[in-house]
Amino acid sequence: MPELRQDPITLRWVAIAVERAKRPHTFTQAPKVVVKAVEECPFCVGHEQETPAEVMAYRDPKTSPNGPGWKVRVVPNLYPAFGPPFGDLDRRHVGPYTVINGLGVHEVLIDSPEHYKDLGLLPLDQVSLVLRAYIDRYLVHLSNPVLKYMLIIVNHGKEAGASREHPHTQLFGVPIVPHNVVEEIEGVRRHRHEKGTCIFCDIMGYEMKVGERIIYENDRFLVFAPYASKVPFETWLIPKAHRPHFEAMTDEEVRSCADALKTGLAKLHYGLNDPPFNYYIHTTPYREEEDGAYHWHLEILPKLSIWAGFELGSGILINTALPEAAAEFLRKVPIPEQVAAEVASRTK
Amino acid sequence: MPELRQDPITLRWVAIAVERAKRPHTFTQAPKVVVKAVEECPFCVGHEQETPAEVMAYRDPKTSPNGPGWKVRVVPNLYPAFGPPFGDLDRRHVGPYTVINGLGVHEVLIDSPEHYKDLGLLPLDQVSLVLRAYIDRYLVHLSNPVLKYMLIIVNHGKEAGASREHPHTQLFGVPIVPHNVVEEIEGVRRHRHEKGTCIFCDIMGYEMKVGERIIYENDRFLVFAPYASKVPFETWLIPKAHRPHFEAMTDEEVRSCADALKTGLAKLHYGLNDPPFNYYIHTTPYREEEDGAYHWHLEILPKLSIWAGFELGSGILINTALPEAAAEFLRKVPIPEQVAAEVASRTK
Repeated sequence: MPELRQDPITLRWVAIAVERAKRPHTFTQAPKVVVKAVEECPFCVGHEQETPAEVMAYRDPKTSPNGPGWKVRVVPNLYPAFGPPFGDLDRRHVGPYTVINGLGVHEVLIDSPEHYKDLGLLPLDQVSLVLRAYIDRYLVHLSNPVLKYMLIIVNHGKEAGASREHPHTQLFGVPIVPHNVVEEIEGVRRHRHEKGTCIFCDIMGYEMKVGERIIYENDRFLVFAPYASKVPFETWLIPKAHRPHFEAMTDEEVRSCADALKTGLAKLHYGLNDPPFNYYIHTTPYREEEDGAYHWHLEILPKLSIWAGFELGSGILINTALPEAAAEFLRKVPIPEQVAAEVASRTK
Repeated sequence: MPELRQDPITLRWVAIAVERAKRPHTFTQAPKVVVKAVEECPFCVGHEQETPAEVMAYRDPKTSPNGPGWKVRVVPNLYPAFGPPFGDLDRRHVGPYTVINGLGVHEVLIDSPEHYKDLGLLPLDQVSLVLRAYIDRYLVHLSNPVLKYMLIIVNHGKEAGASREHPHTQLFGVPIVPHNVVEEIEGVRRHRHEKGTCIFCDIMGYEMKVGERIIYENDRFLVFAPYASKVPFETWLIPKAHRPHFEAMTDEEVRSCADALKTGLAKLHYGLNDPPFNYYIHTTPYREEEDGAYHWHLEILPKLSIWAGFELGSGILINTALPEAAAEFLRKVPIPEQVAAEVASRTK
């Protein structure tokens, strides 16, 4: 019988089509044709002049801005969805409607000079640098009173909305706290009011006890499939300790987070043959009043299904993959470089 | 400057990318290759044995169930997302989670024997029959206490999640009132509490006054682009009089509704070359306590863009078409059969 599972944070329901559920391997992607040559890519080394001027970069000593020699590079989005970052929101009414100016920030962070390697395939040091750059940009905009939230997202693959193949991250500074974040904060508040505990900590404690939805874990981070997964192979990454602020990570935490992110993405890459996906970070909003209550995390949503009329009209998502089966499948996916490292250490 | 427009019912924000906005005609679809022959279609005449047995049909006199001679045919979905329609919801807790059985109904309504004509292209009589069949099935399930809501939806085109080309509607009877419907009902209640009026009536009054977002209207129905359109060319169809219940339409109202629906879909078809779309009906839930407050309507969402990481993480949708420009474009799209009828009447 199909199940309706409720997300305990947002209280939204997901229909897990147990009998229609597909076996995990059926989601494996067909091989892709690489359509864009490195020669045409404005995010590749040597093409720095083809983007707006960089606002930040991690560079080799003695290299110049907007030239080669960078490891991570941040530029304004050429077609920003929000901006400029200063001014008057000019909240106004148009008949029964309300409208404000779309002030904000829209930046592109080029993950590495590698055109063909997403974060799952890059070395741990590089993934750590990317996370460090997320934090640096997050903190740069913290002092701008116009911005209420900074959403950090990745679109990977054409079906997931990526307009460029070269792996990159987008940072959106927006003048309102987004609906989905508000909904989660309200869920955290409600649970704390009722139970006195953090709902995310409770979920994690349960998941670590039962184990069936765990995909990977290290000393500081858990990677797991949520019980009420919105889409097939949904994967969450969350700090094991109660941490409200993504941007407050220590260097050790950044490294553990990079390991967890890299491993979670590599398992999707090798397990499903480079599926399209989106991920985003949910963290405490800028200048949140009830500071300390929220628990930051990162949600990866592979794009393996279409939200159609039922999902759009109801808000109830139909998921045709059992989260437990998806987690078991991903847990068992070997990652070549980890296997190689293990073999090397055994033959020492 | 980009605008953030707020939906006055749900209070959700939509970013209208004014400067990134594309001209309406750029959304025109490339010609499609027809991939499925009528010979293989289980929804076509002569293939009635390839579906589950019909639960209802409008048939020519003296024809037998599950054979030719039907005008509209309703069958259970072969792979139901919800079901069976009776039993125990068995609400239970799994650690911090809640789950219930996915009891319900999932039916397929074949719009007509025509494989290649969607509702926008069918004769008015046939579209009226389809709406009458929606109402009949809606009322059949009204007495089932398990069902809290009946969502009627259409998926048209592969990109919009249609698995079959032959135009059809799906009816989902579900054991909870869907999140998106709850959100709208709360918005209606809030507005009625604050202003004493129906928010939908207020919106309609304003739209009819300013006119710039109107796509089509007849004596009883308005077809317009909502101010905070979630996607390019979003189109709403709504009764001009305050009507809480879709299923309470009189025969005259059904005919006006069919004219409005047919015309709205035909304008999308001819204007954008048969774009993929979803539509769904939002009406008062089965046995709603606060009966009479809600205002039923139908929302058409063309599938011309991808919701990516920003939209999924924030719940703020970025729409790259100005609703006013989309409405003006659709308003001016001529519909061949209307033009022909006009020419015929002039040359009489």
